[in-house]
Amino acid sequence: MVPHLITALTGPLLDLEKRMLDKTTEIERWFRLAWNESTPPFYSSVDVRNAGFKLAPVDTNLFPGGFNNLAPEMIPLAIQAAMSAIEKICPEARSLVLVPEKHTRNTFYLSNVARLAAILKQTGLDIRIASVSDEITGPTKFELPDGQFLTMEPLIRKGDRVGVAGLDPCAVLLNNDLSAGVPPILRGLTEQVVLPPLHAGWATRRKSLHFAAYKEVAESFAEMLSIDPWLMDPYFDSRSQLNFHERVGEDSLAEAVESVLAKTRAKYAEYGITEEPYVVVKADAGTYGMGIMTVKSGEEVVNLNRKQRNKMSVVKEGLEVSDVIIQEGVHTFESIDDAVAEPVVYMIDRYVVGGFYRVHTGRGRDENLNAPGMHFVPLAFEKPCNTPDCADRPDAAVNRFYAYGVIGRMAALAASYELDRMAPVEQPA
Amino acid sequence: MVPHLITALTGPLLDLEKRMLDKTTEIERWFRLAWNESTPPFYSSVDVRNAGFKLAPVDTNLFPGGFNNLAPEMIPLAIQAAMSAIEKICPEARSLVLVPEKHTRNTFYLSNVARLAAILKQTGLDIRIASVSDEITGPTKFELPDGQFLTMEPLIRKGDRVGVAGLDPCAVLLNNDLSAGVPPILRGLTEQVVLPPLHAGWATRRKSLHFAAYKEVAESFAEMLSIDPWLMDPYFDSRSQLNFHERVGEDSLAEAVESVLAKTRAKYAEYGITEEPYVVVKADAGTYGMGIMTVKSGEEVVNLNRKQRNKMSVVKEGLEVSDVIIQEGVHTFESIDDAVAEPVVYMIDRYVVGGFYRVHTGRGRDENLNAPGMHFVPLAFEKPCNTPDCADRPDAAVNRFYAYGVIGRMAALAASYELDRMAPVEQPA
Repeated sequence: MVPHLITALTGPLLDLEKRMLDKTTEIERWFRLAWNESTPPFYSSVDVRNAGFKLAPVDTNLFPGGFNNLAPEMIPLAIQAAMSAIEKICPEARSLVLVPEKHTRNTFYLSNVARLAAILKQTGLDIRIASVSDEITGPTKFELPDGQFLTMEPLIRKGDRVGVAGLDPCAVLLNNDLSAGVPPILRGLTEQVVLPPLHAGWATRRKSLHFAAYKEVAESFAEMLSIDPWLMDPYFDSRSQLNFHERVGEDSLAEAVESVLAKTRAKYAEYGITEEPYVVVKADAGTYGMGIMTVKSGEEVVNLNRKQRNKMSVVKEGLEVSDVIIQEGVHTFESIDDAVAEPVVYMIDRYVVGGFYRVHTGRGRDENLNAPGMHFVPLAFEKPCNTPDCADRPDAAVNRFYAYGVIGRMAALAASYELDRMAPVEQPA
Repeated sequence: MVPHLITALTGPLLDLEKRMLDKTTEIERWFRLAWNESTPPFYSSVDVRNAGFKLAPVDTNLFPGGFNNLAPEMIPLAIQAAMSAIEKICPEARSLVLVPEKHTRNTFYLSNVARLAAILKQTGLDIRIASVSDEITGPTKFELPDGQFLTMEPLIRKGDRVGVAGLDPCAVLLNNDLSAGVPPILRGLTEQVVLPPLHAGWATRRKSLHFAAYKEVAESFAEMLSIDPWLMDPYFDSRSQLNFHERVGEDSLAEAVESVLAKTRAKYAEYGITEEPYVVVKADAGTYGMGIMTVKSGEEVVNLNRKQRNKMSVVKEGLEVSDVIIQEGVHTFESIDDAVAEPVVYMIDRYVVGGFYRVHTGRGRDENLNAPGMHFVPLAFEKPCNTPDCADRPDAAVNRFYAYGVIGRMAALAASYELDRMAPVEQPA
């Protein structure tokens, strides 16, 4: 049994969910036509926040970990979606190497890799797991929490191709977000399908570009539903060439914080929302909840102490933060037994294949649930995201999950616009 | 809870299921490559027989009823598969009319139509249900067993298109097997997508052509797995220009029966099977278990009494039977509490989206479970067909259903070959 979610479903969001329910056919057609023009990311996961009065994405991951957190009942959907993706991208592929993150001591992450490999195997691909870590020098066996084993091998380069000992694979699937830049071994693989493309990595990707694309998606979607796009779209701004250590750019950052807060306050007033607005300042490139802070005034960012400045300066792989996104905070009003719950929606190709809640007891509803060292408890969505029931209440589980799936797909669509715009210009042969 | 299935899983079939489990990746790749060359039927259902020593299709329906018998847990898979099919066939479609069978008094059938409409709606199509029956002269509301309602409207022709009052749909989906021939209103719809194509109807389709195509599929599949194709493929022969009333062609039919029996006996001897072989004589065109008989010797078909001859003479819609298929009978060795159980596998596009058992208490295991007036109890597959578990026993539910799904997909692939071969030659413009 899954605990019941207690959510403050009030005014505007109830309207939004009702309207989504009334218009599922139009929504599905809208997505079908949109995907007819754009290629979906191979896979993605989207952190969604449900503020009761607002439902919006706050982060879109193009190298999703956490497939192990999906309910087992969702795996058939994931397999079918992966079949559909492989059929479109590389219909004749026989084999694939999966390149995971380097951190091999996180057995939860390894469970994600194992789950992904199991899903892909059912699309008719021989799967090998190949690491770019210096620590993997030969086939290495890892024990998983469920008692099964996963074997990782070193990734090997041969000419314009990569593989593992004894296998020259048709395709390469990255589950490594390239935060430290693109390793030389992965550059110039002109003869292999690489999924997602290298420019989807955090070495090049920027959150501000993603949310600019998301804004367009949300505006078009809101027009179709005749609603205010703000109900699904957090305000944001961005600042570059900051230096937290040297306190360079603080005033500019404070001004951006105030500007986003002011716009948010105006919307809160418009909808009669009495909560206190806040903004989240995040590294424009990066993930894993590092280089992130929550503030409620511009002043707060000019008075950072040394510890806070250190925290903001560095993200994963020790990269310096100089560019940030200043994003309207979306309160998390979902909770289970007083624990804050943040939904994450998983997609393969254009299909929502489930999701889970990050449930955390020790944090407030305006704090980040994905901080380093944070131990959330995953709570799998118990129902699929593609079976809305108009006859049921808008906040029934299937309808709630449908709405999450809609937001997730909007973010995935934004990612596809974003990747198209960032695609390296092809050199004439 | 779903009752446990008691099945005699012995020698050769256990080997077959084991081999399928060992080779799921190869099997999935084989299907992917096959579908890369052939277009799957929009939807299909396949009657599978599990004889313990043999697992084979006995009928392939390209206008499947019975979607209402699938477990609700399978509907997300059906929706996703339908999305994938619509995306490929008519990505820009906004609306579709669903043309059902004429028999509107069968509320179980109407439940199937309602379920199909609900699935298609989630692909972003406005769905209307349009009948070719003379009895439907205006919008007509039918109550379904679950208390919901379904509205049927008369199908209307306008120029080269059909529709309903107020809607000129992008596509037409037939759930009517055209046993009585193609109604004039459906002929020459050059401007609309018609699914499945008209030549998939029983007015033109022949079981013998289907099983000839299936034989090729089974041989290729068996070669990949290094097994005897007979383990998945029933022997068959066909006879035409019979007249049961006039007793024309009896000797030829008897000879075919003996020939199929002789080949079957030889296989039974090869595998040490002690069951008595039988053959099923069926109308080569048609469905619904009419025009069908089970015999154990050639003699039986030359000594038919008047009642038996009448029964064989006519299929659905009063059509005369002159062509028959003589098919090796595949014993049904699956049972639930002494009731015979026959699996039916459902597919949309190339994806298995579930299935159910026809469970019948009053019949023997070599009799037909789909006879007119027969009231079977549907027992939905409780697990999906695309998640085999190599770590579990070959006869575990997920593995059994996987094997059924493989046989179902082989039959769907055969249907796609069959339809390609029967496709009307395009006239130059």
